[in-house]
Amino acid sequence: MGSLSTRERILEAGLKVLFRQGYIGSGIRDVVAEAGIPLGSFTNYFRTKESFVAEVLDRYFANLKTLVSKALNDKSLTPRQRLKRYLEIISGRLQRGKWNRGCLIGDLSLEASLQSKLLRKRLEEIFREWRTPFAQCIAEAQAASEIDSKFEPTDLAEFLLASWEGAILRMKVEGGPAALDRFEKIVFETVFKK
Amino acid sequence: MGSLSTRERILEAGLKVLFRQGYIGSGIRDVVAEAGIPLGSFTNYFRTKESFVAEVLDRYFANLKTLVSKALNDKSLTPRQRLKRYLEIISGRLQRGKWNRGCLIGDLSLEASLQSKLLRKRLEEIFREWRTPFAQCIAEAQAASEIDSKFEPTDLAEFLLASWEGAILRMKVEGGPAALDRFEKIVFETVFKK
Repeated sequence: MGSLSTRERILEAGLKVLFRQGYIGSGIRDVVAEAGIPLGSFTNYFRTKESFVAEVLDRYFANLKTLVSKALNDKSLTPRQRLKRYLEIISGRLQRGKWNRGCLIGDLSLEASLQSKLLRKRLEEIFREWRTPFAQCIAEAQAASEIDSKFEPTDLAEFLLASWEGAILRMKVEGGPAALDRFEKIVFETVFKK
Repeated sequence: MGSLSTRERILEAGLKVLFRQGYIGSGIRDVVAEAGIPLGSFTNYFRTKESFVAEVLDRYFANLKTLVSKALNDKSLTPRQRLKRYLEIISGRLQRGKWNRGCLIGDLSLEASLQSKLLRKRLEEIFREWRTPFAQCIAEAQAASEIDSKFEPTDLAEFLLASWEGAILRMKVEGGPAALDRFEKIVFETVFKK
């Protein structure tokens, strides 16, 4: 904690509270209690709960993008193997959360889309930005004849990310990795195959 | 409204409020306000918010099962066509909700799994019950050589329902049907194909 600024501490606490209590259930009081700072400090840094959550989400996505890069830029793997590697990296993260903590993007997509225009707009932008390196990697895999070229790379990328959110949803109910393993096994023997 | 019992009116109001505000954000006060009944009436019928929501969920699933039957028991269609029919029926329902209202099972899976052991257990049972007629239909499609037999029917059924929840999640962010259409187009040309 020592090296974190107060602002960063609040954002980190926000992520924990959002995972635990969701958007509607996360009060600013819960966030400051988690961060161990007085309530007044919050308003020094953030205007509203909505804009605060948008910033937690942006930070979460920035972190996720480093994992995307780690997998999709690994030139020791073929393009198709890189896609698989991404799912494995995320599965490892989900395991650390004991299969109870899912994906903030998925959580907010279902819970906050109706509650906040700002968050919904931000989530839409995130999905579009998220799919871009996947579409590029899929195009490479198609060019290398690793994946069938019947579908557009962007459509396949959207399909992969949305369906993966569905697998994470199922994982949360089960509290175990079966849905993630099943997803990987099935899609790489069907959709993401020559 | 005239023919509904007070109990049923409260359950219907509960569904509306849950769709709008989620599990944590739905107070009993919101439910009785929506139902237009005094607060005291609620406790005549339901013990806790948690058990009430479990009953709303059961009622939602009972309704969903009639849609499952409608699609999967339509003997004028081949088994594979029946699976497609199910997605079309659900897409029609989602359109009525103007692509903003998703699936209560998906919403509660992400939001309530951590909050309530009772709901999580119920959701797990629901997913298992839900997949059964799909696994049966997929087995028929495999026997009729409409779908590749590489994977177990139960795994394919789980995959279909979980990935479809992912498509609904993406639909909610976009506020439109593109993710649903994309899902149907891709999976029926790949996973659910001979």
